[in-house]
Amino acid sequence: MHVFKATIDSEIMKETIEAISALVTECRLHTDDNGISARAVDTANVAMISLTLGKQAFKSYEASPGEIGIDIAKIKNVFGMAGSKDSLSLLLPDTVQKLQISFGSYHYSVTLLDTNTIRKDPNPPSIQLPGKVVIAGADLYEAIKAASIVSDKISFRIDPEAQIFEMRADGDTDQIDKVFSKEDVKDIIFVKARSMFSLDYLKDMGKVMGKADLVEIYLGTDHPVRFSFPIAGGAGHVEYLLAPRIEAE
Amino acid sequence: MHVFKATIDSEIMKETIEAISALVTECRLHTDDNGISARAVDTANVAMISLTLGKQAFKSYEASPGEIGIDIAKIKNVFGMAGSKDSLSLLLPDTVQKLQISFGSYHYSVTLLDTNTIRKDPNPPSIQLPGKVVIAGADLYEAIKAASIVSDKISFRIDPEAQIFEMRADGDTDQIDKVFSKEDVKDIIFVKARSMFSLDYLKDMGKVMGKADLVEIYLGTDHPVRFSFPIAGGAGHVEYLLAPRIEAE
Amino acid sequence: MHVFKATIDSEIMKETIEAISALVTECRLHTDDNGISARAVDTANVAMISLTLGKQAFKSYEASPGEIGIDIAKIKNVFGMAGSKDSLSLLLPDTVQKLQISFGSYHYSVTLLDTNTIRKDPNPPSIQLPGKVVIAGADLYEAIKAASIVSDKISFRIDPEAQIFEMRADGDTDQIDKVFSKEDVKDIIFVKARSMFSLDYLKDMGKVMGKADLVEIYLGTDHPVRFSFPIAGGAGHVEYLLAPRIEAE
Repeated sequence: MHVFKATIDSEIMKETIEAISALVTECRLHTDDNGISARAVDTANVAMISLTLGKQAFKSYEASPGEIGIDIAKIKNVFGMAGSKDSLSLLLPDTVQKLQISFGSYHYSVTLLDTNTIRKDPNPPSIQLPGKVVIAGADLYEAIKAASIVSDKISFRIDPEAQIFEMRADGDTDQIDKVFSKEDVKDIIFVKARSMFSLDYLKDMGKVMGKADLVEIYLGTDHPVRFSFPIAGGAGHVEYLLAPRIEAE
Repeated sequence: MHVFKATIDSEIMKETIEAISALVTECRLHTDDNGISARAVDTANVAMISLTLGKQAFKSYEASPGEIGIDIAKIKNVFGMAGSKDSLSLLLPDTVQKLQISFGSYHYSVTLLDTNTIRKDPNPPSIQLPGKVVIAGADLYEAIKAASIVSDKISFRIDPEAQIFEMRADGDTDQIDKVFSKEDVKDIIFVKARSMFSLDYLKDMGKVMGKADLVEIYLGTDHPVRFSFPIAGGAGHVEYLLAPRIEAE
Repeated sequence: MHVFKATIDSEIMKETIEAISALVTECRLHTDDNGISARAVDTANVAMISLTLGKQAFKSYEASPGEIGIDIAKIKNVFGMAGSKDSLSLLLPDTVQKLQISFGSYHYSVTLLDTNTIRKDPNPPSIQLPGKVVIAGADLYEAIKAASIVSDKISFRIDPEAQIFEMRADGDTDQIDKVFSKEDVKDIIFVKARSMFSLDYLKDMGKVMGKADLVEIYLGTDHPVRFSFPIAGGAGHVEYLLAPRIEAE
C-alpha cells in the first residue's frame, strides 16, 4: 500500500509545481522516505526536468515508495486557492485514486492520473559540459526576455580569450547581446563553449529561474545546456536540460 | 411631476449599482420620501434582488414617489468616471426623460429608459427557510471561487447532528468542501437543510457579498437560498434570492 | 558622414517616443548640433506632431546634421527593456544602416528604415487660432476619457460672455460637459471659439498630454486645435495639431 501524508507551506508547493509546469502538463511524482522527486521530458523531446524536494522541505512527512500521477494544470488551480501563509495537508487515502488536499477549512479531493498513461520517466543522458557560469537568476531571465524582442533563438557563449560570457540573439534585421565579464558573474570556468537554444522553451524556464538567487549554467559547443538551481530555500533542487538548436549558416 | 434631487458619495452609489448589476442589465428605481429601492428578477427567472437605499445614505435628498428607468451598464460607466472621494449630484429635470449626474466640474445627462419597456417588478415569494447561517462575506465569496475550480454547482448544507455548515462542490472527478463549525460562523440555527445552486449566478453575487462584513444565509431543503446583507454602511440593504438546482441522482 | 552619438536617461527617451507613437508608426528623426527633432503627419492627414528634444536633455550629445529612419513600434520594445534608471547609449556606426542602443550590459543593434520610404515631413500650416486656454494635462486627459463614454467626438469651446472654457460631448442619447471657469484654468484668452474633434485621435494624444503639468490649447471656430506642451522637464517640446470634424446639423 502506498502511504503519503505530508504538510507543507503552500508557497513551497506552488514553487515546485511551477518548475514542473514550465515543461509538462502531467507528471509522475515519486515518493519515498527521503522526499518527493520527478523527472519528465516535454512532448517534443527537447527539454528535461529533474526535480527533488527533500523531506526537510515539509513540516511533516511520511511516505512509502510509490508514484502519484499528477495533472499539473488542475493541481495548480487548487494550490492557487491557498493563501501564501496557508499550510497544505496532502494525503493519499487507502481506498481511492485521489489526493486529498486541505488548507484552512477547505478540503479538496483530486482524482489522480493513472501513472501507466503518463509518459515514461526519461533517463538522464550522460553528457560532458565543460563550460560553467554561475549568474543571478534575475539576470538570466532578463536576458531571455530581451532576446525574445528580436529573435526566437539565443546563443550562449563562453569566450576564454575575451574572458566573457555572452548571451546573444540575432534576428532577421536586429540583434542584441548581453556580455558578462568575470566581475558580473558569481563564478565562471573559462572553457570555450557556444550553443544556440530556442527561446520558446527558455521563456517558460526563465520565469522559474528568475526567482533563484543563483543559477549554474553548464555549456558545451553545439551541446545541450544544463541549468541547475535550488528551490524551497535549498531543501529542493531543479535541473533543466535543454537540447541545442542547430544553426543554419 | 416626479421630483428627484439628491447628493451622495460616489462610492455608495457605485456599491448600489454593483449589487443590481450582478443580476440585471436594466431596472426600475423607485423613489419616495424614504429613499430609493429596486426589485428585479434576472431574465432566466432564477435570481431576484430586493434593494433599498435609505434617505440617510444621501448627503441631501428630495424625492416624490416615482420610477426611474436605468440602463445599468451605461450608468456604471458614468459613475466609474467619478473619483472615490467625489460627491455625485443626481437630478431629474422637469422637461426631459433624462437623469443629470454631476461631479467635480462634470455634467452628464443620461437618457432614461422608458419604464414601460422594463420587465415588471417581481413579487417577493413567501417561502419558509428555517435554516440560517451568518458568516463573513469574504469567507462566502472565497468558497464560491474555490468551488468553481471543480464544478458549476455548489451545495449548501446545515447538519444539526455534525453541528456544521458545509459548502461543497462535486465535479466529475474532483470535489471540494469547506466546513464551518459553530466557532467559524457568527451565528447559526441548526435546522437540517440542504440545497444545491448554480455557480454561474453565485459568482456574480459573491463578488458583491464578498465586501459585506457579514451575510445572513437562509436555507431549506431543495429550496431557494436567501442572502441578506447591508450596504452603504448600514444605510441600505440587499436581499438576493436564488432558486435551487434540481440534483440528478 | 552622419555622426550621432548620445547618452540619455531611458525615461526621457521613452517619453519622447510615446509622444510620436500617438500619431505614427514610423518617422524620420532629424539630428543636428542643437538636438533631435521630428515632424510627422498621420496616414489620414488629420493630425500632425512637431517635436524637439534639445541637446540639454542628453547627458552627452554629439551629432552632425542628418536623418534617422525609425520604426516606432520596434524601438519602443527595445526601450521598454531598459529600467527606469538606466542610461541609454545611442550610436550610429559608420558602416551600416543600424542604430546601436546600449544600457547596462545590453547591446541592441536595430536596423533603420530607409528614410526615402518614409512619408515626407509635412510643412507646418500657418493658421490663426486666437483663443487660448492653459490647463492641467491631467484635467484635459480626464475630460477626453469621460467624453468617450457617450460619443466619438468632442467640442472645445471658449465662451467670452459666460467666461468659461467648455469641453462637451453629445452622444445619440446622452451628453457630458465639463466646464472650466477662470479659476479652474492657469490662463485663458477669452476669444469666442468653438470646434469639434474626433476622440479617436484625442484619446492617444490625451494619454501623452495627461503627463504634462500644463498644456496650452489654441482654438478657433471650425478650425484645428493646437496643443503645446513641454517634455523632458522642459528640455523638449511637443506640438500636436488636429483638424476639426465638420458638424452635421
